[in-house]
Amino acid sequence: MTETTEKPALPDNPFIAEMLRQTRAFDSYGVNEDLNQFEIMQPYVVTKEQRRDMPIIGDPDEELIARLKAYYSALAMRIEAGCGKMATPMFNISHEGFGRVIISVGKLIVLDRSLRDVHRFGFPSLDKMCEEADKLITAALKLVETYPDAAEA
Amino acid sequence: MTETTEKPALPDNPFIAEMLRQTRAFDSYGVNEDLNQFEIMQPYVVTKEQRRDMPIIGDPDEELIARLKAYYSALAMRIEAGCGKMATPMFNISHEGFGRVIISVGKLIVLDRSLRDVHRFGFPSLDKMCEEADKLITAALKLVETYPDAAEA
Repeated sequence: MTETTEKPALPDNPFIAEMLRQTRAFDSYGVNEDLNQFEIMQPYVVTKEQRRDMPIIGDPDEELIARLKAYYSALAMRIEAGCGKMATPMFNISHEGFGRVIISVGKLIVLDRSLRDVHRFGFPSLDKMCEEADKLITAALKLVETYPDAAEA
Repeated sequence: MTETTEKPALPDNPFIAEMLRQTRAFDSYGVNEDLNQFEIMQPYVVTKEQRRDMPIIGDPDEELIARLKAYYSALAMRIEAGCGKMATPMFNISHEGFGRVIISVGKLIVLDRSLRDVHRFGFPSLDKMCEEADKLITAALKLVETYPDAAEA
């Protein structure tokens, strides 16, 4: 990856590799095709200043919805890697950017989040993103351990 | 209910009362306001002949989506009544009428169905609708019994 040597390095976390994979998978219009890894990950960073400049209410566009889905799909893939069982995300997002996302393993819901302000989806930094992801993945894997029968069902 | 005495009777099943309630709840445009109970339930009946005349592929309209949501919400309410724990439906339906619906109790998925051909949603008769509903409710309640801890979580 010659291009990344000239840019700030991406966090050394397997979640980033999965995010790149999922972001490419959800890129139905090829928006990211000519971008390097760093450029692909940049839209996930929304600094405090950027957030302050965004409208409180706004309709999320398709690229943003694609990023949100890539994020939760990457979480599902890491949960799957962690427990060896299929993890499936499911989304319900309104045009106004409200909704719910779950990730299920068997009959067990291992992640369940209300979505709001989807149009402002992003993280203060990629390190923070990885930190949050690690927490969510750990919590999900703990649920699989706690309710193994439902997760197997 | 004077009006129903002149019409064919509705099935004597608590699911019908819940269907009427949910259909009214999802009736955002007041389409059903002046209808009697029998008229409200009629669009749920799609006979073999009607189904044959429908296009194989078609975009479901909003009223049909409302009926589909009313049906699964009524199932959730009957599951809730049966186990005394909150049951929540979640929908993911594409514009093309494909998708998935789940009903969860706690962290347990008690109903999980792929949706397709949503534009042809309906039942051969209201009795058949109640029969199918009873089966789905029984199966869901059995899952709550089998995995009580996940359902409590």
